[in-house]
Amino acid sequence: MNDSKDKSQGCGQEDTGHQFTRQIPIYEILQPEGIEIIHEKSLEVLEEVGVDFYLEEAREILSRNGAKVEGETAYFTPDLVEEHLSHAPSQFTQIARNPENNLLIGGKNAVFAPVYGPPFVQDLEGGRREATLEDFQNFVKLAYLSPYIHHSGGTIVEPTDEPSETRHLDMLYSHIKYSDKPFMGAVMAHDHAEDSVRMVEIVHGKEAVRENPALISLINISSPRRLDDRMLEALTVYAKARQAVIITPFIMAGAMSPVSLAGTLIQQNAEALAGLVYAQMVNPGTPVVYGSFMTNIDLKSGAPVFGSPESQMALLASAQMAKKYGIPFRSGGMFASSKVTDAQAAYESVMTMLPAVLGRVHFILHAAGWLENGMTAGYEKFVLDCELLGMYHKLTKGIDFSKEALAMDSLRDVEPGGHHLGTPHTMRNFANAFFRSEIFDYKDIDQWVDDGSVTAAESAADKVKNLLAEYEAPVLDPELDQELQEFIAQRKEEIKAED
Amino acid sequence: MNDSKDKSQGCGQEDTGHQFTRQIPIYEILQPEGIEIIHEKSLEVLEEVGVDFYLEEAREILSRNGAKVEGETAYFTPDLVEEHLSHAPSQFTQIARNPENNLLIGGKNAVFAPVYGPPFVQDLEGGRREATLEDFQNFVKLAYLSPYIHHSGGTIVEPTDEPSETRHLDMLYSHIKYSDKPFMGAVMAHDHAEDSVRMVEIVHGKEAVRENPALISLINISSPRRLDDRMLEALTVYAKARQAVIITPFIMAGAMSPVSLAGTLIQQNAEALAGLVYAQMVNPGTPVVYGSFMTNIDLKSGAPVFGSPESQMALLASAQMAKKYGIPFRSGGMFASSKVTDAQAAYESVMTMLPAVLGRVHFILHAAGWLENGMTAGYEKFVLDCELLGMYHKLTKGIDFSKEALAMDSLRDVEPGGHHLGTPHTMRNFANAFFRSEIFDYKDIDQWVDDGSVTAAESAADKVKNLLAEYEAPVLDPELDQELQEFIAQRKEEIKAED
Repeated sequence: MNDSKDKSQGCGQEDTGHQFTRQIPIYEILQPEGIEIIHEKSLEVLEEVGVDFYLEEAREILSRNGAKVEGETAYFTPDLVEEHLSHAPSQFTQIARNPENNLLIGGKNAVFAPVYGPPFVQDLEGGRREATLEDFQNFVKLAYLSPYIHHSGGTIVEPTDEPSETRHLDMLYSHIKYSDKPFMGAVMAHDHAEDSVRMVEIVHGKEAVRENPALISLINISSPRRLDDRMLEALTVYAKARQAVIITPFIMAGAMSPVSLAGTLIQQNAEALAGLVYAQMVNPGTPVVYGSFMTNIDLKSGAPVFGSPESQMALLASAQMAKKYGIPFRSGGMFASSKVTDAQAAYESVMTMLPAVLGRVHFILHAAGWLENGMTAGYEKFVLDCELLGMYHKLTKGIDFSKEALAMDSLRDVEPGGHHLGTPHTMRNFANAFFRSEIFDYKDIDQWVDDGSVTAAESAADKVKNLLAEYEAPVLDPELDQELQEFIAQRKEEIKAED
Repeated sequence: MNDSKDKSQGCGQEDTGHQFTRQIPIYEILQPEGIEIIHEKSLEVLEEVGVDFYLEEAREILSRNGAKVEGETAYFTPDLVEEHLSHAPSQFTQIARNPENNLLIGGKNAVFAPVYGPPFVQDLEGGRREATLEDFQNFVKLAYLSPYIHHSGGTIVEPTDEPSETRHLDMLYSHIKYSDKPFMGAVMAHDHAEDSVRMVEIVHGKEAVRENPALISLINISSPRRLDDRMLEALTVYAKARQAVIITPFIMAGAMSPVSLAGTLIQQNAEALAGLVYAQMVNPGTPVVYGSFMTNIDLKSGAPVFGSPESQMALLASAQMAKKYGIPFRSGGMFASSKVTDAQAAYESVMTMLPAVLGRVHFILHAAGWLENGMTAGYEKFVLDCELLGMYHKLTKGIDFSKEALAMDSLRDVEPGGHHLGTPHTMRNFANAFFRSEIFDYKDIDQWVDDGSVTAAESAADKVKNLLAEYEAPVLDPELDQELQEFIAQRKEEIKAED
C-alpha cells in the first residue's frame, strides 16, 4: 500500500494543456507518523468494528470476495484491503464528447467542477428561489463558457420543476446538449445509474466507454460507517460498467464523527477504504477516486461551518492518505456558510479552496457557485469564483527561470527610480505577464464612484447576463441528438407506466 | 550565507504561548536552483550595477566599510555582502511595556500587525473620509482588544487633523497610552526617528532598549535601486540605537521592476541585501528583517492589483531568500484592491494572507483593515480580518495525534448512522474542538431572514461599536504618563519654533 506503484490507465499524459496542472510543490501537513497512525487505526476499525452495507447484492459480493459479513456489517482484514486496492488505477482519463475536453484524473492535474446539489438558486435580481431546469441549463452554459471550469459537473442544481423520477434524464441530456465537457452520472437509484450509462453509450459507443470512463459519479457514504441502498445500487451499476466513482464519506465532524480531527480522519479513511475495496470487488480495475467532504459543525448551534481551519487541515491530511494508496483524490470547493455573495462567503471560499489548490487534490467539485451550506447556487458567486479559479491556474504554473525571465538587460538598463514600462523586455513579455481579472475592480476611487460604486456582486451580475446572452451551444450531431431524445422519451414513458 | 547558523538574540523562546506559532510544515515554492539563481544574479546586480543611497552620511558609512561608492551609487562585492549579513541576528525579541506582550520575531512565530499608512478611513455608517487622530486611537484600541493581533503597528492611519510635523508624537503616545503591545517607530524624518527612540527610552530605560529593541520600523526602498534621504536618516538613527528595522523594497512589478517574476525577485533581493548590509555596517548586530512588499500593476490601466497570483508566488519565493540568509522575513497582509468590504475584498485578502500563513513569514503587517490599495482603513474590514486571523491561529496548530485525539472508544461505540453528540469523548473535548467565529453567520436561512438578512459587513459594524464601547485602557503609570506628556509638549514647542 504505497504510492510508488504505477497503475495508470487510459489515454492521458501528465500535462494535458487545457487542464489545471501543478508545476509547484504539493503542500503536505502530515508527517509520515501521522499517516501511519490513521492507516493502522482505520484498518483496526475495518477489521474489528466494520462498515454497514444496506444492499443484499453488495453483501453477497463482499462475502464472495472474502470479507466477513455478519448481519448488515462487513469486516475487512488488512490483507483483503491491500489486495483489492492494488487493482485501483493511479490515474485515468474521463472522456468527453469533444475529445479536446478529455480529462486526466490524477498526476499533477486537478479538475474544477461546478457546485453539486443545491435545490435553490440565487441572484441579485431575483433573490433566492427554487431551482428549475432552466437554471440547471444556465449553469451548464456558464460552466461551458469558463476556461477555468473543466467539467460540466452533475446535479449542478436540482431542477425542481421536473418530476424527481425523470429529472435525471433532463439533466444528462442538458449536459450533453449544452456543453461538450465531461459530466457526472445520476446516483439516486439503480435505474438512474443505468440510464446514465446508456446515454454515454449512445454518445460514445459501448466499447469506448469500457476503455475509458465517460462518467464519474459521486457515491456518498452516510457516515458513520454505512453505505445506503441507493448509493450502493448506483456504485454497483457504475463499477460493472467500468465508469469512475468518487467514494466520499460525508462528514460533519462533531456529529457524524468525533470532535477530534485524528478520530475523524481514522473514521473517514476506514469508510473510504470500505467503499473503494467494494468497487474493486465488483469489477477489478474500476477507476475510483478517494473522496473527502469533511467539515465541522458549530458546536453551539449544530449548524455546519464551512471554510473552517479544521476542514482545511482535514483536507490536506486526507489528500496524503489517498496518496499513500496511490489513488486520485477529491476534496475542496468554494464552500461558504454565508447566505449571500458577501465578504464572509468570499473569505470562507478561499479558505477551503487555496489548500485544495496547494494540496494533492485531483477532482474539486463545488469549485464555483456554492452558497448557504450548499443549499443555494449563486449566479454571481459562480462567475466570481471562476475569477479565482483563473488566478489558481496562474499560481500553479510557478516561476519561470529562463534567461529571458531573469530580465538582466532591464535590471542593468533601467536607472534608479526609473520605470520598466515600455522597456524592450516589458514589450516582449507583457502580454501574458500577469493574470487579469475581468470583473474585479482596479479603478481609482474617483473613477469607481463616478461609475456608480459598483460592488463585486453587482459587477458579477452583469457578467452573468452577458455570458448567457452570448452563449452558443457546441454543435451536436442531429442524428445523435435524435437518438438521445428518443431514448429519453421512451424512458419517460416507461417510468410513467411503472408508477 | 545559509540558514544553518544560529544567530538568535534576545530573551525569546520558540513558542511564546500568546503568539502565532506554526506547528505545521512551511510551504516552499522554489527549488534550490531557483534560490541560487536569484542569489547569484542579485549579487551580480550589487557588484556591477549598484544601488543609490541619497544621503551623504550613508555613503560615508558604506565607503568606510568597504563598499565602492561612485557618485550616489554604492557597489557591493559578494564577500562584503556575506561578511556584513553574518552579523544580523536570526531572531530577536521586541519588548512591550507589558512584558507578556513581548514578541519573538523569527523561528516558528509570526506577528500579525494592523494596516499601515492609509490617509482615509471607512465604515458603513460614515462612508469614506479623511482619517483623524480619533480614528487612529480607535484602531489602536481594536488592535489591543483582538487576541489575534499581536502588535499595535505604526501609522495605522494618518491622523490628518494633526500637523504633519508633530503627528508622529501623537501616534507614538497613543500606542503607549491605549495599548500595551509593541509598536513601530516613525520614519518620515531624522527627528521623528530620534523622538521615537527617546519615547521608548522613557518607557523602558535606555539600557533595556539597547538589549532588546522596543521599536521595529518600516524602511521602504524606493525601487528600482534607491534609498531616499528620509528613509536612510531613520534607518541610520534606528540602527545606531539598536532598534529593529524592516528593509522592504516597495515594488509594483511591471512598473518598478520587470514584468517577469524572476527578474523582480532578483531586483528585490539586491535591494533588500543593500539595505540589510548597510544596517549592519551602521551597527553590527542590529536586528533586521528582510521585507517584501511586491505586487503587480494592471498592465491595462497601470493600477496596482492586490491578491494577484503573481504576488503570492513572489511572497513565497522571497520568504525562501530570507531563509537562505538566516534573517526573519516580513510580507503578506489582508491586501485588497476593492474599495469596500465586499466579496472582492475578501477574496483578495485571503489570497495573499493564506500563503503568508503557510510560508516562512515572521512579521505580517497589514494583517487587518486594508482596503482600496492601502488608501483606506476599513473599520468593518478590520474586525472581519481578525476573524480570519483567529482561524489561522487554529490552522497552524496542526493535528493532534494523542491517544485521546484518536477517539477509538467513540469510533467503536457509536453505531452506524448514529451520532457523536454527547458521547463521553465529545463531552471531554468539545470546548476547544473547533474555532468559532463570533461574527460570521451560521444560522439557517429562515432564522437569518427573520433576523434581518444581516451581511458580514453589517455584522462587523455592530462588533466595532461594541468593542469600542467596552474598551478599557491598560493601566499606565501616572508618572510615566506625565513624563511622556511633558516630552511631547516640549518637542511640539521646539518643532513649532523651528518653523
